[in-house]
Amino acid sequence: MSHTFYQRKPTISNRKFDGRRRVIIEGVSPEIDDGLYPAKRVTGETAVVGADIFTDGADAIRVELCFRPKSSRAWKRVPMKFLVNDRWEAEFTPGAPGVWEFTIEAWLDHFQTWRRGLIKKIEDGQDVSLELRMGATMIEDAAGRASKKDAARLRELASVMTSGEAAVAESAAQCDELQGLMQQYPDKEFAAKYCRVLEIRVDQTKAGFSTWYEFFPRSWAEEPGKHGTFKECKRLLPLIARMGFDVVYLPPIHPIGSTKRKGRNNALVAGPDDPGSCWAIGSKDGGHKAIHPELGTIEDFEAFVREAEKHGISVALDIAFQCSPDHPYVREHPQWFKWRPDGTVQFAENPPKKYEDILPIDFETEDWENLWIELKSVMLFWIKKGVRIFRVDNPHTKAFLFWDWAISEISAEYPDAVFLAEAFTRPKVMARLAKGGFNQSYTYFTWRNTKKDLQEYLIELTTTEVKEYMRPNFWPNTPDILHEELQAGHRSTFIARMVLAATLSSNYGMYGPAYELCEHVPVRKGKEEYLDSEKYEIKQWDMDRPGNIRAEITAVNRIRMENAALQQTNNIEFVRVDAGEGCEHEMLMAYVKCSPDDENIILTVVNLDPQNTHTGWLRFPLEKFELPHTHHFRVEDLISGRTYEWDGEWNYIELNPEYMPAHIFKVHLHP
Amino acid sequence: MSHTFYQRKPTISNRKFDGRRRVIIEGVSPEIDDGLYPAKRVTGETAVVGADIFTDGADAIRVELCFRPKSSRAWKRVPMKFLVNDRWEAEFTPGAPGVWEFTIEAWLDHFQTWRRGLIKKIEDGQDVSLELRMGATMIEDAAGRASKKDAARLRELASVMTSGEAAVAESAAQCDELQGLMQQYPDKEFAAKYCRVLEIRVDQTKAGFSTWYEFFPRSWAEEPGKHGTFKECKRLLPLIARMGFDVVYLPPIHPIGSTKRKGRNNALVAGPDDPGSCWAIGSKDGGHKAIHPELGTIEDFEAFVREAEKHGISVALDIAFQCSPDHPYVREHPQWFKWRPDGTVQFAENPPKKYEDILPIDFETEDWENLWIELKSVMLFWIKKGVRIFRVDNPHTKAFLFWDWAISEISAEYPDAVFLAEAFTRPKVMARLAKGGFNQSYTYFTWRNTKKDLQEYLIELTTTEVKEYMRPNFWPNTPDILHEELQAGHRSTFIARMVLAATLSSNYGMYGPAYELCEHVPVRKGKEEYLDSEKYEIKQWDMDRPGNIRAEITAVNRIRMENAALQQTNNIEFVRVDAGEGCEHEMLMAYVKCSPDDENIILTVVNLDPQNTHTGWLRFPLEKFELPHTHHFRVEDLISGRTYEWDGEWNYIELNPEYMPAHIFKVHLHP
Repeated sequence: MSHTFYQRKPTISNRKFDGRRRVIIEGVSPEIDDGLYPAKRVTGETAVVGADIFTDGADAIRVELCFRPKSSRAWKRVPMKFLVNDRWEAEFTPGAPGVWEFTIEAWLDHFQTWRRGLIKKIEDGQDVSLELRMGATMIEDAAGRASKKDAARLRELASVMTSGEAAVAESAAQCDELQGLMQQYPDKEFAAKYCRVLEIRVDQTKAGFSTWYEFFPRSWAEEPGKHGTFKECKRLLPLIARMGFDVVYLPPIHPIGSTKRKGRNNALVAGPDDPGSCWAIGSKDGGHKAIHPELGTIEDFEAFVREAEKHGISVALDIAFQCSPDHPYVREHPQWFKWRPDGTVQFAENPPKKYEDILPIDFETEDWENLWIELKSVMLFWIKKGVRIFRVDNPHTKAFLFWDWAISEISAEYPDAVFLAEAFTRPKVMARLAKGGFNQSYTYFTWRNTKKDLQEYLIELTTTEVKEYMRPNFWPNTPDILHEELQAGHRSTFIARMVLAATLSSNYGMYGPAYELCEHVPVRKGKEEYLDSEKYEIKQWDMDRPGNIRAEITAVNRIRMENAALQQTNNIEFVRVDAGEGCEHEMLMAYVKCSPDDENIILTVVNLDPQNTHTGWLRFPLEKFELPHTHHFRVEDLISGRTYEWDGEWNYIELNPEYMPAHIFKVHLHP
Repeated sequence: MSHTFYQRKPTISNRKFDGRRRVIIEGVSPEIDDGLYPAKRVTGETAVVGADIFTDGADAIRVELCFRPKSSRAWKRVPMKFLVNDRWEAEFTPGAPGVWEFTIEAWLDHFQTWRRGLIKKIEDGQDVSLELRMGATMIEDAAGRASKKDAARLRELASVMTSGEAAVAESAAQCDELQGLMQQYPDKEFAAKYCRVLEIRVDQTKAGFSTWYEFFPRSWAEEPGKHGTFKECKRLLPLIARMGFDVVYLPPIHPIGSTKRKGRNNALVAGPDDPGSCWAIGSKDGGHKAIHPELGTIEDFEAFVREAEKHGISVALDIAFQCSPDHPYVREHPQWFKWRPDGTVQFAENPPKKYEDILPIDFETEDWENLWIELKSVMLFWIKKGVRIFRVDNPHTKAFLFWDWAISEISAEYPDAVFLAEAFTRPKVMARLAKGGFNQSYTYFTWRNTKKDLQEYLIELTTTEVKEYMRPNFWPNTPDILHEELQAGHRSTFIARMVLAATLSSNYGMYGPAYELCEHVPVRKGKEEYLDSEKYEIKQWDMDRPGNIRAEITAVNRIRMENAALQQTNNIEFVRVDAGEGCEHEMLMAYVKCSPDDENIILTVVNLDPQNTHTGWLRFPLEKFELPHTHHFRVEDLISGRTYEWDGEWNYIELNPEYMPAHIFKVHLHP
């Protein structure tokens, strides 16, 4: 199908333009910024395509959705269906990861227009002999486009219509067989093609459903106080897998600079044994393509990746494009940095604050092409070591065009690559990174703590255009963010925030073991950083410390694995919980998610108050399932294992946070 | 400014692409269907342009809106201002009718970034001598772009910054003079240009503010019962002008066919004296470029147009591209019609209904280029006779691409041409006609009769994207549409609907004298057509018939002329009228409009119930004018001339429809 941009600048002087194309196609969705950016789906997920399609006059219209993998030349086609108000819709399910393309073709079906009129005229008792002759001409034209066998049959029908007795002719004209044959051989001479081919970026499954566990390998030496190695970290993998995580994300594993190294608790001067922040990348031992020697060798890392895969776990690496003053780039590519008049490299700053252990890369360097090539090669280096998932550190402080280019180039070669944007910044900047290729995005979830804020945020993420290209990944904590709410130290808050992250978003993660051990002391009041942060020191964690929430995390992750409803994000629908007398409950929040086939229905209820039992009345939306509001059904709490019989749409809810601040109900509508 | 489509497909192999352009420009408004269609303004009306503009990191950004008439090469520039949430805005006021262009240019202001940091560091007490040297380098670069005089001054300041005593150097670095000079000579090497140049269609004043009067010239013979002529119609013009109309729209003035001519009340067979429907265009006397002989000659018509202009009235013609069976086109261009197997031309139909006096033109003809040229020449023919305004009959039954092309071609030559789309059809079809070039559009106003329906419809028209390209023209009646509400025959309904049309929309019109004489009898119950419709017969109107509403129309049109607030449509804001106890009044509806400078404020209140007096409490939005809700002010009813003192935001309203169903208040906030 060639794409004549027929809607643009009608003209009679251009021979390629044909003014007889009377169908208009517009308002196509999904279409992000007029097709500049692809919508996103995961492999096997359905893409629904809509468009406004109409013509002048009252002619019948036929529409086809055309789709293909970008690498293919041949279009697959499915008919689009008319909905209402000139809106048409169809869906397709793209297969393998990669870029898929779609567009729309529409044409006037004159035979159908004629047939509709004919039927009305016959019903009105009019003589239609002339109409039959006109129809026969159309059928003979179609015969010219048909297979030999069908052509013969079409000509036969045309001949019955013009020579037979009136009743026989009229019935031939209206018969289903003729209708079917005519649909099969349409006259597409003036078919309109939508003015652009749109793209859908199809990602691997874990881009859409993933459970992340972040940990610092250096804290996992077998001998307390030593620097941990990849070899030693292998023993963690079965434990992490048993908790239900399928991505482990490692903070940077590269050599750490010593110049201006930060000490414990971000001290300006490091002690002799302080390991430094692993985000201060680069030393005499190498840069972004090297392994910090104390962690082991490249081979050790590869073995760790392979071992993880055995447990169904993908290893995600941190991509932090910044350098310690000792990074080889400074010596080898001085043109990639800004130099100050005193001959030093410009360090990172947020005046008046200075970050002297970190040198930002100058994306305005004249040597930007080589810089781009090198940075891309860093990611390819680790891909070749078996890594497919990257958590990109502060991508919003590097040029957008670089990410557009690098992710597009890498994804073309490795369609299963996944990039998570760690950008906690303004909404349009975060949206632009997602449009430009990032497959997942950190969010404001950590700072959405009330029922109203959480609901509003989810509605924004899942019902506006953002849902087409930005996949949220919810984190209740990170090594940098211990939210004030968690600092109160209530175990129930840790459980509730984990349940929220895990059930609101199909992608979620946590920084452990700090999270499951309910670490909650900030470096000082009013700050979100941890006291004695693992960023600056080697920690020793007692995974079995009393009060840990490992069992709860394990249960919730198992529930996620077993319930397709929780493996999507945009399928969320909030349901009403009243405190009584028609007044919305402020602490009890509830939402339903269904699998695409509606077979799996999960209703989550969370008590946002960590200290008090709350009761309320929850309205389950039976009408969504076309059931009367008096329907009797059963809900099964997948955490506690208890089952409740519910009678009608309004049901009593009680959650004691001391015991468990959440229900995750599997809804059995037809017991 | 050349437009490198820099945001598209970043690449390092294309020499024109520079990866160092770090500013992103997106979400530009107004931008209709990614710039395929222009937004619309009238000459002298301000266009507000907005965009999301941001960069990676925290660098200062500068943005310019660039605009020009399409015919000009040079861009005018105004700085855009930062609003909030990465949104920037600026406005410009296009001049003469025609196509204007705009785009956006943005760049990083490294000097500003540096200056912001410097100030913070100085406040923090840091040694900034290195920073001053870095700043001096930027200033020296700017000197290279500056005029000789400014360059010298810049170098002087740079030298003070590097060689002077600390306090002197720091104060030189921060001085306003330096700031001003640096703004004047920015480094735009990596300036980002928005990826497209957008268009604004600038129309003549009457496209935005016009008052239409439709009448049938043939009913205005001086001798009763005769066929009226243009000469005789001249005497109507002062009367129409005195009523405050500035456009007279004439139904088709061309020769009327006799084959299959319709009789009175749309009878299938015409009597010997029946004049026929003037929409059955074409006879042996000519087609769309001819004048119906009984109306007079081309010269008579031209004289009528000139006479109208003397009264400030533009003559609008009807463009109805369809033919009677007697139209010369049928003989001269048989290929423009569909022929039936019996050798007759296909007439219009809506099965099972037949319209045998009308032959539609076949826009799928192989000869479409010549057809398009001929139809365009029809409009140009009348333009050359002095006509600039066209009311296009059923444009949605002709190819969209034809209108796109014809209107664009004609407007390029005659930028003051105005096309009103008479398409009472589905919303997306009406929107597409407006996008494609129609300067005004008929609307659903006639069928929006309750307060809720009217408010919802106005909100759709004036607050969604539609407002950028579709200008409503409100008609309480047309020769085809006598709404059921009018059929009850209440004089107050006629007044109320006229006030609504005239104050809700800056463009409005009526079919007279049927309207001002309150003609209200339908052809039969349940139908919207008039009994003894003027479409099929010559009428005699007594303009002074008792009960007419000419005085009321005259008053309202005068108020429109004298109050800039009523000369726009999108400035409407509905205000609350309560029936009591916080309950919205169902019959009293009110809205405020302000002139662009807020000097002229008009508050309209209408009683939608034709039979009963209603009272209510109206809340005037004092906060909109930054006044306390206890503010004391004065409102002057421009219809009755009465003045009321209002004390605070809530005020009592009473409207007796027997007397007058509406107030049009001029609001004097500062008496």
